[in-house]
Amino acid sequence: MKKVALGIDIGGTNTAIGVVDQAGDVLSKTSIPTPKDGNVDNYIKSIAETVRELLNGLKDLVECQGIGIGAPNANYYSGNIEYAPNLAFKGIVPLVNLLKEAIPEFKVIALTNDANAAAMGEMIYGGAKGMKNFVMYTLGTGVGSGIIVNGELVYGHDGFAGECGHTMLIPGGRSCGCGINGHLESYCSAGGMKRTAFELLAYYNATDSLLANKTFNELESKDIYDAAVKGDKIALEVFRVTGDYLARGIADTIHHTSPEAVFIFGGPTAAGEILFNPIRESLEKYLLPIFKGKQQAQILPSKLKLGDAAIVGASSLVWKELENNA
Amino acid sequence: MKKVALGIDIGGTNTAIGVVDQAGDVLSKTSIPTPKDGNVDNYIKSIAETVRELLNGLKDLVECQGIGIGAPNANYYSGNIEYAPNLAFKGIVPLVNLLKEAIPEFKVIALTNDANAAAMGEMIYGGAKGMKNFVMYTLGTGVGSGIIVNGELVYGHDGFAGECGHTMLIPGGRSCGCGINGHLESYCSAGGMKRTAFELLAYYNATDSLLANKTFNELESKDIYDAAVKGDKIALEVFRVTGDYLARGIADTIHHTSPEAVFIFGGPTAAGEILFNPIRESLEKYLLPIFKGKQQAQILPSKLKLGDAAIVGASSLVWKELENNA
Repeated sequence: MKKVALGIDIGGTNTAIGVVDQAGDVLSKTSIPTPKDGNVDNYIKSIAETVRELLNGLKDLVECQGIGIGAPNANYYSGNIEYAPNLAFKGIVPLVNLLKEAIPEFKVIALTNDANAAAMGEMIYGGAKGMKNFVMYTLGTGVGSGIIVNGELVYGHDGFAGECGHTMLIPGGRSCGCGINGHLESYCSAGGMKRTAFELLAYYNATDSLLANKTFNELESKDIYDAAVKGDKIALEVFRVTGDYLARGIADTIHHTSPEAVFIFGGPTAAGEILFNPIRESLEKYLLPIFKGKQQAQILPSKLKLGDAAIVGASSLVWKELENNA
Repeated sequence: MKKVALGIDIGGTNTAIGVVDQAGDVLSKTSIPTPKDGNVDNYIKSIAETVRELLNGLKDLVECQGIGIGAPNANYYSGNIEYAPNLAFKGIVPLVNLLKEAIPEFKVIALTNDANAAAMGEMIYGGAKGMKNFVMYTLGTGVGSGIIVNGELVYGHDGFAGECGHTMLIPGGRSCGCGINGHLESYCSAGGMKRTAFELLAYYNATDSLLANKTFNELESKDIYDAAVKGDKIALEVFRVTGDYLARGIADTIHHTSPEAVFIFGGPTAAGEILFNPIRESLEKYLLPIFKGKQQAQILPSKLKLGDAAIVGASSLVWKELENNA
């Protein structure tokens, strides 16, 4: 019998559920719709059924140790999802308690936000194995982060720590989804990179750029990557500028918690050195002398596989809970 | 016999040494010059002699539990002072090891930087008693900070965490002592407030301000405070702007570690609401909705007494070491 953990990733559209072993490999997975009508009871029933089906499919092969869940606006301490703007549930959903009632056979059910789950996944299964102090930045629709200090996720006083995407990058700068102008997320998310592309097209009057023939609503971050690979100057400049923005935010994070490494996760990391070189170069400009040239300057791509990372990250919470309760 | 700890504060000019009881009261203190010639051996001898004299003066009354030291560029992990720009010592000084040889009777000798020591002092003796997650900002010649997560100081991978004074406030902004432009310290230190005063005098062409008759080299932060108390508009605007700058930095720190409270220590806090009101008002603009109106918005003056805080903060390291080793 292999020891496994269940990982659940709650997204705005779908909820992915997978069975993950201690090496971080997904043995089985499926997904159900995240309800659009906000009906929590049906959703909990549906999760419970799906979990049992998945485990039934692996009967006599695995021994499930618990459930880890990643979700937006999730609070580790309370086990609640609180006022998540991208989910249809209203107010506070006591997810962990509801699941404990619906699936009483598991002692460990833990919840945190997506980026925290990714950071935990990196520590348990990925490139941060053995590290006690590191940070994870996740780039996607938004910019998330998870901070590990002394081998533990930093949840802070109320469970909501690690919102590095909403640190101030440029005072009075771009509008951010949270309502405060100038945040890192409005520059370094997928949408932020698109906005940078349009600013640069305008600034350079770059009629010959591969990006000049897409509307604002058409252009996707994948287009910027494809153009950069073809050597398009504007697209390359988008990555250079984004790398510089990220370096500035990362420098501030290093000045806060002095991590051993900073991992970056998400679609844009597929660009490899096109993204990482500008980050590393700019970081040297923004770091205090005491931090320069040290291991902190390690800016590393996440070792979690892009497709499964959310499930895998969520599942890692289980091993951490078991370790802390041992 | 009262249990006491020794606190040592190493400054550029003087080294203050005091005997502190468990309530944070200084029973006896003195100071010796910090050597200008960089002679470490003589300095260690001099500290050892002074420590013994102080304790001899309290003979039969106190039982000393150890020594805590606050110093610039101090590394908790190694016990070294490393390349401190304001001290005459060259390179790396293994202060804790040298003191352990010179004063072998104490099992606990711990070292950290001044702002970390202040944060620890706040937790052990001050307004943060019982808090597990909080942050301390220290305003003075520079801007320092100490971050407490889960009841422990955040030292980070290499012992240098907590440099919030060197987070980016205004990209491409004022020159900072560290060599990187735009850092919080260049706006919110004593010198930073003076620079703000001169910018505002120039901006408003404020010939009628009380601050308009001092040269750049004459003006001290005390002058700004005195003028603000008298209702001088430029001086009040200096505090308002400084409060706004601080709020921006503090918001970023809250977004990192979600503390229960942020304590502020140092000379400018004597201005009371003239400083704290602008910080609190601006903070509401810069905090994510999930953090607004919560306890994090608690921006509190330090309860450590200004004159003794450095000694008291340093001494608190001893109680923490004993607690962690128990």
